Amino acid sequence: MPDSRNTAESANEALDKIIQGFRRFRNDVFPQQQAFFEELAQEQNPRAMFITCSDSRVVPELITQSEPGDLFVTRNVGNIVPPYGQMLGGVSTAIEYAVMALGVKHIIVCGHSDCGAMKAVMNPEKVEHMPTVKAWLRHAEVARTVVEHNCCGGHDALSVLTEENVVAQLDHLRTHPSVASRLASGQLFIHGWIYNVGTSQILAYDAAQGKFRPVDEEPWPMATPRARYTPEQP
Amino acid sequence: MPDSRNTAESANEALDKIIQGFRRFRNDVFPQQQAFFEELAQEQNPRAMFITCSDSRVVPELITQSEPGDLFVTRNVGNIVPPYGQMLGGVSTAIEYAVMALGVKHIIVCGHSDCGAMKAVMNPEKVEHMPTVKAWLRHAEVARTVVEHNCCGGHDALSVLTEENVVAQLDHLRTHPSVASRLASGQLFIHGWIYNVGTSQILAYDAAQGKFRPVDEEPWPMATPRARYTPEQP
Amino acid sequence: MPDSRNTAESANEALDKIIQGFRRFRNDVFPQQQAFFEELAQEQNPRAMFITCSDSRVVPELITQSEPGDLFVTRNVGNIVPPYGQMLGGVSTAIEYAVMALGVKHIIVCGHSDCGAMKAVMNPEKVEHMPTVKAWLRHAEVARTVVEHNCCGGHDALSVLTEENVVAQLDHLRTHPSVASRLASGQLFIHGWIYNVGTSQILAYDAAQGKFRPVDEEPWPMATPRARYTPEQP
Amino acid sequence: MPDSRNTAESANEALDKIIQGFRRFRNDVFPQQQAFFEELAQEQNPRAMFITCSDSRVVPELITQSEPGDLFVTRNVGNIVPPYGQMLGGVSTAIEYAVMALGVKHIIVCGHSDCGAMKAVMNPEKVEHMPTVKAWLRHAEVARTVVEHNCCGGHDALSVLTEENVVAQLDHLRTHPSVASRLASGQLFIHGWIYNVGTSQILAYDAAQGKFRPVDEEPWPMATPRARYTPEQP
Repeated sequence: MPDSRNTAESANEALDKIIQGFRRFRNDVFPQQQAFFEELAQEQNPRAMFITCSDSRVVPELITQSEPGDLFVTRNVGNIVPPYGQMLGGVSTAIEYAVMALGVKHIIVCGHSDCGAMKAVMNPEKVEHMPTVKAWLRHAEVARTVVEHNCCGGHDALSVLTEENVVAQLDHLRTHPSVASRLASGQLFIHGWIYNVGTSQILAYDAAQGKFRPVDEEPWPMATPRARYTPEQP
Repeated sequence: MPDSRNTAESANEALDKIIQGFRRFRNDVFPQQQAFFEELAQEQNPRAMFITCSDSRVVPELITQSEPGDLFVTRNVGNIVPPYGQMLGGVSTAIEYAVMALGVKHIIVCGHSDCGAMKAVMNPEKVEHMPTVKAWLRHAEVARTVVEHNCCGGHDALSVLTEENVVAQLDHLRTHPSVASRLASGQLFIHGWIYNVGTSQILAYDAAQGKFRPVDEEPWPMATPRARYTPEQP
Repeated sequence: MPDSRNTAESANEALDKIIQGFRRFRNDVFPQQQAFFEELAQEQNPRAMFITCSDSRVVPELITQSEPGDLFVTRNVGNIVPPYGQMLGGVSTAIEYAVMALGVKHIIVCGHSDCGAMKAVMNPEKVEHMPTVKAWLRHAEVARTVVEHNCCGGHDALSVLTEENVVAQLDHLRTHPSVASRLASGQLFIHGWIYNVGTSQILAYDAAQGKFRPVDEEPWPMATPRARYTPEQP
Repeated sequence: MPDSRNTAESANEALDKIIQGFRRFRNDVFPQQQAFFEELAQEQNPRAMFITCSDSRVVPELITQSEPGDLFVTRNVGNIVPPYGQMLGGVSTAIEYAVMALGVKHIIVCGHSDCGAMKAVMNPEKVEHMPTVKAWLRHAEVARTVVEHNCCGGHDALSVLTEENVVAQLDHLRTHPSVASRLASGQLFIHGWIYNVGTSQILAYDAAQGKFRPVDEEPWPMATPRARYTPEQP
């Protein structure tokens, strides 16, 4: 079945489209912003860190209309943030680098509708033959358990699981030393979003209300815990 | 020093720009392609997997002019692909999912100019206080060694290291069972790219010649090893 | 069952044969080459590194008619070369030492017929009660997957798996910094062999053709990738 | 310096000698014992497990005049046996397989004179640029400490360290569950040897006397601890 999904387009056609796309970028897009790109080439100074799913339908720069240089992005299956611990890999590295080397002030964890990873959490037999995927999704096991013990079946369960997964990954995020330290001093803000591919809606987690609300509904939903220390003034 | 980089823009201003960007997406961009997004909401069927750096200046969909749904993306510090082994994390998971669940036919590993991770590999003292970053960059140690023993100093060394890192990550990619299996049967193709932010140029690794050439120079540079089996015909 | 294999010979008889063998070496073999051994005692300068299985039927010095001092040997279950990464053990150490301290110019990875490790990879239930063996053989999982997806059943599958395992371990070998560096400059050569115990045949991997051929068939089969740098001339 | 060691013989000449050696084996040696090899091809039933150094001058089958099929061999830098624990690699695997799958009754740990690994333990600066070797030799740190606190300087220290290292690795061996279990029931015997390349002498550890004696001096030196349980009779 997986193999049949890609039969309409041959491997050569796929590569051809990618290379032609690059030619359009180089010939049509780049020349109009050449000075911007040349300046950008010297240093990055991103506005925020964006952690989202590898899903091809979720394009962070598109849905926030960001320019190159705006978002420091890490993407993986299920927008997972493993907790800080013995096994530290790519996500933990990206967090440490974004916070300590780049000094970002926002970290956004963004889930999305129709997520294959969330479906696999609900139906583990789908990934029975993918041992690495199965092991990775243990990081969403806490969300599955919350839903199983508190909630609903069917289609609605997928939405709730997707939300609970974002909440769980925000909790994981807070276990990282560099994050915890700056949350405690009010220097860093964290956000939990859900992007709906079919409607363009984005919901954000409001920790005070314990629920998700439209990201641009005033006052803006906040997931950042209260700072316990005042940062030193320069 | 890192903290001073973000002083020009306050945390509130940064978040405001991101939310305003989303409003432009929802109000201006989405309505023009609503039918496309609604269809996309049902399933993804990406053309290729794209493994690149978290660097904010590298936007895969921009530089290949791809649409949502085209590229399955995983991004981390240094566009690293850890080898298959006992410690399997997010990149290994994304590879297994892209190949086995989605059936992608191309995997592109894309490095870029002015990469902070590559600079850190050359100057480890820069990340001395970031233990997770330091451990992660061991996956690029092979590239550092190749350059140290074979090459040049100064600015040029950074370019060569960036290339060698892509070659090394392609070697790592080949240690993943799902990848090796489809390489052996000619069903999967792997590519090593370097994107230059300031010039828009993309170079690709040509394994037969042992060097990088413009990605769209005919015949297109190929990094895929020779297949040892003929796939069954449908 | 395993215990019954060794019932014909008692533990005392086994030790006795080993000690008597040593006496023959000391009394009959050594005196004829005493000057050679005395010179050898000062330093080793091996011609090649030989990585092969612990199997008692594979004697590297016998099948290449090598003298003491010729081959730097590391042997383990399944002639495995773990990829370079966070867990570095005996094989990685031997490689680093052979290449950096001894300056060997050839590394031969040699599998063999009727390999118990390869049989265990095909039938994991055989080692279900041997957790260390089972974990170790994950380094051959890539070979198992290649065979499962591309090939044949029965006796032939064991031969193909044995070949694919050697190819996989050559790929792993290339992830080691000391190896990659010297491959890039053409100072090191790697070889993938299969020794057939019952026929004395040795096949070697020819990367350009993507298949195994007799090791002494002209032109000799080569597994070494193309060098990207020219070594400095002395 | 390391690179200069191998300059007398070119890479081509080295490979040529190995291939010619194989031809002599196939054409001259194999035909005289063809029936023996054909029977051996079906199954291995080794007399003992032999753990020794990768050093090219130590050929286990030569110094015990063993035939193919007699010795199950694992070789690494310094004839190290890592203790049983979280990081289980090739040596631990070979032990588990030899004891549980093959049912060997003897395990011999064999050090040797002029060992580069032991010299590196005494002079760590020699391997300062070989991080993997350095980490691996931590398994011999206990031997270094014993010598430092109890013994002598100079050339003699190397001999004592080589002996202490074998004693330490025997202690490590006893931490492996499969070994400990069979030692407790008297079904397995362990031996600590030192082979002198220049004199052909082999010394063996006599645990009761706490010292090394000639391996074939009656009564044979024994390193196996007293069994605490009587094995069940069949």
